Amino acid sequence: MGVVVSLDEQPRNNGIDGLIGLARPGMERVNQLILDKAGSDVKMIPEVANHLINSGGKRLRPMLTIASAEMFGYEGDGHIKLAASVEFMHTATLLHDDVVDESDRRRSKPTARMIWGNQASVLVGDFLLGQAFRMMVDVGEMDALDVLSTASAIIAEGEVMQLSAAKKLSTTEDDYLAVIKAKTAALFLAACEVGPIVAGMGADERAALRSYGLNLGLAFQLVDDVLDYGGNANDLGKNVGDDFREGKITLPVLLAYRRGSDEERIFWRESLEDGDNGDERLERARGLMSRHGALADTIGRARHFGAIARDALAPMPAGPQKTALLEVVDFCISRLN
Amino acid sequence: MGVVVSLDEQPRNNGIDGLIGLARPGMERVNQLILDKAGSDVKMIPEVANHLINSGGKRLRPMLTIASAEMFGYEGDGHIKLAASVEFMHTATLLHDDVVDESDRRRSKPTARMIWGNQASVLVGDFLLGQAFRMMVDVGEMDALDVLSTASAIIAEGEVMQLSAAKKLSTTEDDYLAVIKAKTAALFLAACEVGPIVAGMGADERAALRSYGLNLGLAFQLVDDVLDYGGNANDLGKNVGDDFREGKITLPVLLAYRRGSDEERIFWRESLEDGDNGDERLERARGLMSRHGALADTIGRARHFGAIARDALAPMPAGPQKTALLEVVDFCISRLN
Repeated sequence: MGVVVSLDEQPRNNGIDGLIGLARPGMERVNQLILDKAGSDVKMIPEVANHLINSGGKRLRPMLTIASAEMFGYEGDGHIKLAASVEFMHTATLLHDDVVDESDRRRSKPTARMIWGNQASVLVGDFLLGQAFRMMVDVGEMDALDVLSTASAIIAEGEVMQLSAAKKLSTTEDDYLAVIKAKTAALFLAACEVGPIVAGMGADERAALRSYGLNLGLAFQLVDDVLDYGGNANDLGKNVGDDFREGKITLPVLLAYRRGSDEERIFWRESLEDGDNGDERLERARGLMSRHGALADTIGRARHFGAIARDALAPMPAGPQKTALLEVVDFCISRLN
Repeated sequence: MGVVVSLDEQPRNNGIDGLIGLARPGMERVNQLILDKAGSDVKMIPEVANHLINSGGKRLRPMLTIASAEMFGYEGDGHIKLAASVEFMHTATLLHDDVVDESDRRRSKPTARMIWGNQASVLVGDFLLGQAFRMMVDVGEMDALDVLSTASAIIAEGEVMQLSAAKKLSTTEDDYLAVIKAKTAALFLAACEVGPIVAGMGADERAALRSYGLNLGLAFQLVDDVLDYGGNANDLGKNVGDDFREGKITLPVLLAYRRGSDEERIFWRESLEDGDNGDERLERARGLMSRHGALADTIGRARHFGAIARDALAPMPAGPQKTALLEVVDFCISRLN
């Protein structure tokens, strides 16, 4: 069962290819820096770090930093270091998340904690976070340090918030949005805002990229939530039903729960709160979401945030970076097809 | 069985009381800042953070920052924020350490992970680290950020090094010193070096406080290692034998192992590598350490680093701060009595 919805009315674009092409020269330097800074004489560190770094992620976040700086004509190397910092912060979060969620697999590969243990995952995450801050310090832009260190605290706060809300089907949509704003969108926001900062731009450009990043991040997470119930495991590198089996409360679940009958609510509680989550129950969950329009409406919410992200960029200078960033919004949502 | 050794030839002093008295006004502000910055609407965060923050630690590290800045006449509030950052970095490390070591108790109280779980301990540690960086950014001294972010990466690297070396009795003394230099002494070093930085002093003062902190940290850790085999549980707030039961390789163990007979080496391997570590075996371990002078010689090493720490401070301006910092060296070693 795939989710097929008509997206917005705009003509389709090349998705993320524009961004990838534009960011390529910068990303080659970012990737080299990532390899350097994940290095250590303690050989377990590069082993664990590279397992995740080389796991086939798109590196969307550092590409956003590259494009957000270059759209203002920046030509130094500060954005390279900041982009690598952003990717390290993301990698550290994934390492810690997999420990917290007791995840066995990520992108169809065993998680680092399954190979090297929880201990190494916690500590190598800490190491990458430390290296991220060293690279930021090396850039020497206090405002960028402010934005990224604030993101770091907010991301952790969001994860704790999610832990507290975990398995509570009474979570409201607003509460859920607060969680994903912190745990996902805060890093998108920071990755985009440090671009104009390092390029020496003023408050308007910072605010525009900040709003773009925040709303793109919200759309990205909501689409991710949908893909977990409606996508194709091969396309995603994640297994359909992972969130269900881990008892994660996401927006499609919250909508289906709220809109369901008393009997359906008992089904959701047994599945997500009590852990009765076999394959036939996953199928029933998908059926209930379909009946109540929970996936389609989550996509609708994602499209709402995507529209805000596009409008945020509107007053920014036209050029290939702006075009590419606008296309990324559509890419995030069109992942659904 | 207590360890009773004659310490150095200098007359005894008031230990840590001088530092506590001098740092009191600053520490009142540090403690207030700690409470503020450990706060969050996500109520699990202050619960977990305060459990550890209020656990009766002496807050030696932030006191070192206060004294290291005030010895140069610094009167601003940058050292308050840096001291709180140092304590947050320390607290985050403890939260993660307890997860990595699977520790049940710290300072005779259940560890945070026993009350709130490993997940909360990992994430609240991440939050405190993020807040620490925000406070450093708030101070706006790039050199202090450099020193503390470097310490952050080095501490994590040291923990991974220890994980890799864990339960290997073939570890050399040099390798062990490299581990404790990273995992313990690096934060003492940073806590002391940011004092002259925030006070606007030059390279000589930074180098002096850096060397003082590094060597004090090494002495401190070695004495801690001794206390785990020879101290009194009530005095320490830690249980004698914790390191033994956790299979931790520390210098007293390494010395007793190297100096022991083949049969004794089998005993050590069974105890620390294979986990056969009951109370009667702890008694035998203590007996072997005594026979081979392992505790006394570890104390000798600690005294060696303590002497370097004292000499590092020698050219610094005389005054109550210098006197108090010199007394701290003796205090660290005299904890043994």
